Amino acid sequence: MDLKKIGNVKFVYGGVCAPRGFKANGVQCGLAHKPLGEMAEANAAANNAVPTAKKKNDLAMIVADTECTAAAVYTTNKVKGAPILVTKEHLADGKARAVIVNSVNANTCNPDGYEKATKMCQLAAEALGLDEKDIIVASTGVIGQVLPIEPIASGIKPLVEGLSYGGNKSALEAIMTTDTMPKEVAVEFELGGKTCVMGAMLKGSGMIHPNMATTLTFITTDADISAEMLQRALSDNVKVTLNRASVDGDTSTNDMVCVMASGTAGNEKITTENEDFGVFSNALYNILLNLARMMAKDGEGATKLIECAVTGAADEKTAETVAKSVVCSSLLKSMIFGEDANAGRIYCAVGYSDAEFDISNVDIDMSSKSGSIALGRKGCVTAFDEDVAKKVLSEDEIQIIVSLGEGPGTAVCWGCDLTYDYVKINGDYRS
Amino acid sequence: MDLKKIGNVKFVYGGVCAPRGFKANGVQCGLAHKPLGEMAEANAAANNAVPTAKKKNDLAMIVADTECTAAAVYTTNKVKGAPILVTKEHLADGKARAVIVNSVNANTCNPDGYEKATKMCQLAAEALGLDEKDIIVASTGVIGQVLPIEPIASGIKPLVEGLSYGGNKSALEAIMTTDTMPKEVAVEFELGGKTCVMGAMLKGSGMIHPNMATTLTFITTDADISAEMLQRALSDNVKVTLNRASVDGDTSTNDMVCVMASGTAGNEKITTENEDFGVFSNALYNILLNLARMMAKDGEGATKLIECAVTGAADEKTAETVAKSVVCSSLLKSMIFGEDANAGRIYCAVGYSDAEFDISNVDIDMSSKSGSIALGRKGCVTAFDEDVAKKVLSEDEIQIIVSLGEGPGTAVCWGCDLTYDYVKINGDYRS
Repeated sequence: MDLKKIGNVKFVYGGVCAPRGFKANGVQCGLAHKPLGEMAEANAAANNAVPTAKKKNDLAMIVADTECTAAAVYTTNKVKGAPILVTKEHLADGKARAVIVNSVNANTCNPDGYEKATKMCQLAAEALGLDEKDIIVASTGVIGQVLPIEPIASGIKPLVEGLSYGGNKSALEAIMTTDTMPKEVAVEFELGGKTCVMGAMLKGSGMIHPNMATTLTFITTDADISAEMLQRALSDNVKVTLNRASVDGDTSTNDMVCVMASGTAGNEKITTENEDFGVFSNALYNILLNLARMMAKDGEGATKLIECAVTGAADEKTAETVAKSVVCSSLLKSMIFGEDANAGRIYCAVGYSDAEFDISNVDIDMSSKSGSIALGRKGCVTAFDEDVAKKVLSEDEIQIIVSLGEGPGTAVCWGCDLTYDYVKINGDYRS
Repeated sequence: MDLKKIGNVKFVYGGVCAPRGFKANGVQCGLAHKPLGEMAEANAAANNAVPTAKKKNDLAMIVADTECTAAAVYTTNKVKGAPILVTKEHLADGKARAVIVNSVNANTCNPDGYEKATKMCQLAAEALGLDEKDIIVASTGVIGQVLPIEPIASGIKPLVEGLSYGGNKSALEAIMTTDTMPKEVAVEFELGGKTCVMGAMLKGSGMIHPNMATTLTFITTDADISAEMLQRALSDNVKVTLNRASVDGDTSTNDMVCVMASGTAGNEKITTENEDFGVFSNALYNILLNLARMMAKDGEGATKLIECAVTGAADEKTAETVAKSVVCSSLLKSMIFGEDANAGRIYCAVGYSDAEFDISNVDIDMSSKSGSIALGRKGCVTAFDEDVAKKVLSEDEIQIIVSLGEGPGTAVCWGCDLTYDYVKINGDYRS
């Protein structure tokens, strides 16, 4: 998909390895999800697991050459994965050096998750010669099964040995679950004449919903910034990007966005909300905006990205509430899949949003690469040309514009269509 | 499906015609949804429309022999169908005699909806020799298209001529849209030695979500009760029945539940919250409970009814919030369709509900006609037998029991599985 560029940044290659001084790698260590009853067996088998060409990587690592300031945001689900608890403790000092992450098993809702997450950090720290408190740990996959630690223990050695400054793709493969395409992005930007780089990778196409620190996202940068300012930039930008993307309304238990800043770019350290902070924050916005769009477009089973832009709201909160309501409507999502311009459903989703406005002022338009069309004016569906609407809907990125006609508030949210494949993927995820 | 019986009522046949003194009928008047551009054409054609055997009824009427007290609850969507506005005005005096209702076209989000809804009442009143203010009007179908009044005008005569004390089924057919089965229920109960009867019909299998006065529901009774007490009984019971059923999270623009009480049963008129009120309210609960279950089970594309019972909550509100979260989860709904006992997803949906409780106390069980199984204890997924789980999930009514272990609050919510057919039905609803 086309990347959206806001302000003065340049897109570059390399994902999490784009900034200088960050190595990454991914290996296939042999994790496999099995019913709990067969877990002992699986543990035993896993010790002798032979990775095959068919299987994808399931264990990844990102390591900075030097100590980094670090910040993170986490899921708002009351059920929090054990890795979230451990990472929170490790980031209490605002510092980190490395990330270890597995897919296949979420290490959540099981009796010994905390111990296993801690053990993952210990194994990583030992192999890297670091303090375990400097390790960020994350897991994604099936909830409620015991995580076999043996495959991870035996996978650490090849994982560390294979670390490289170009290892972003193999790390990214290891964190993917139902994703159908790798999602990474990197930008270059300038702080006081120094060129800085920021890169990121993201996994996630299901259990994705606004109001969480959505999915697993790892961001690296060589810019110099204090932990406090890093946290502020992250929290601010996640709110208007990942937290405005929804696939299915389900807020996961394990999701996390973390960022590590090594400071090796040589810029004057950012410690206040100065001009440099604005430039840094904009770079982060570009990263998260594009990841949010990629994530929504690669929603489980999705064939189309739906972008809803609300303008003319009394305030931004109202605009966001309305836009979320539109991108979350199952009826609207099904209709976009079917390429059917049922404008009444858009009014319906606007109308049941939990926000205050006068529906008789609301205009609705739809656009894509193939043109644009007015669907509603002043609360009524207009007499539009069905052929034009069909053409607009034939594209794979559809924009719905809702004008409330009341004030200056605007917001954009992202979602995807609801398809047969969403049901298929989730009807039997475990097997 | 098996009817659930609470307290001292007896199920009887006859739907809205089960109480003495209520006639009903349905006809095929020739409404058809067309793109707005073709509407003039459709209007012209409709004047000469010849009902064919293939087409279902699309215009219904219920008429009481005597004046009734009446009450209603309506959708909470800010977009309100024009018939809702007209019915609200007509019920301001707490009285009604008849209902006129069409399917195919929702008469909403169009420029002349209010005039058309008023015209429907006038046509009905004229044909019945009644005051138009005593007519309840409702519409269901596609939003945002002009309602052609000619088919309705020409359909009124055969509609009124065919009214009968056994016309409940033909009326019911006329209000169905994507429903796959007719939904009606009636009960007998006693008030002070007098036998009273209450009957109802409901349409709706999509755009169904808690917090609205869900779908179109028409209730008749021969019990004698004041308008104020009737409204109280209706509002109280809708809250714990229809408002706890969800199909797709979409709150419709046109939905309404209305009840007419003729008072011909000869019971002492209910004017306070006395013992008789309790008996009456319980009869209404039986009606609405069973309609809610039928509606959820016949959700668009659904193959299974999901019932989530939450117990041990600090209060009823907490229990309801958690139960709704479970029955509304797309992931859980897909998993039930796939008959996959992914217990982690249930914890996940419990965890992201907007309620306060300690997740480490939460137990989860699942049951059906084929048995029951413990899926989780104290926040962890248990080592359950997959074969037993498969057997439980093979039934078409699945109960999920969530125990919060904190207090006396309980609530039950209803939903259905998410299937390929939901997407198919909604991908191209208009054509």
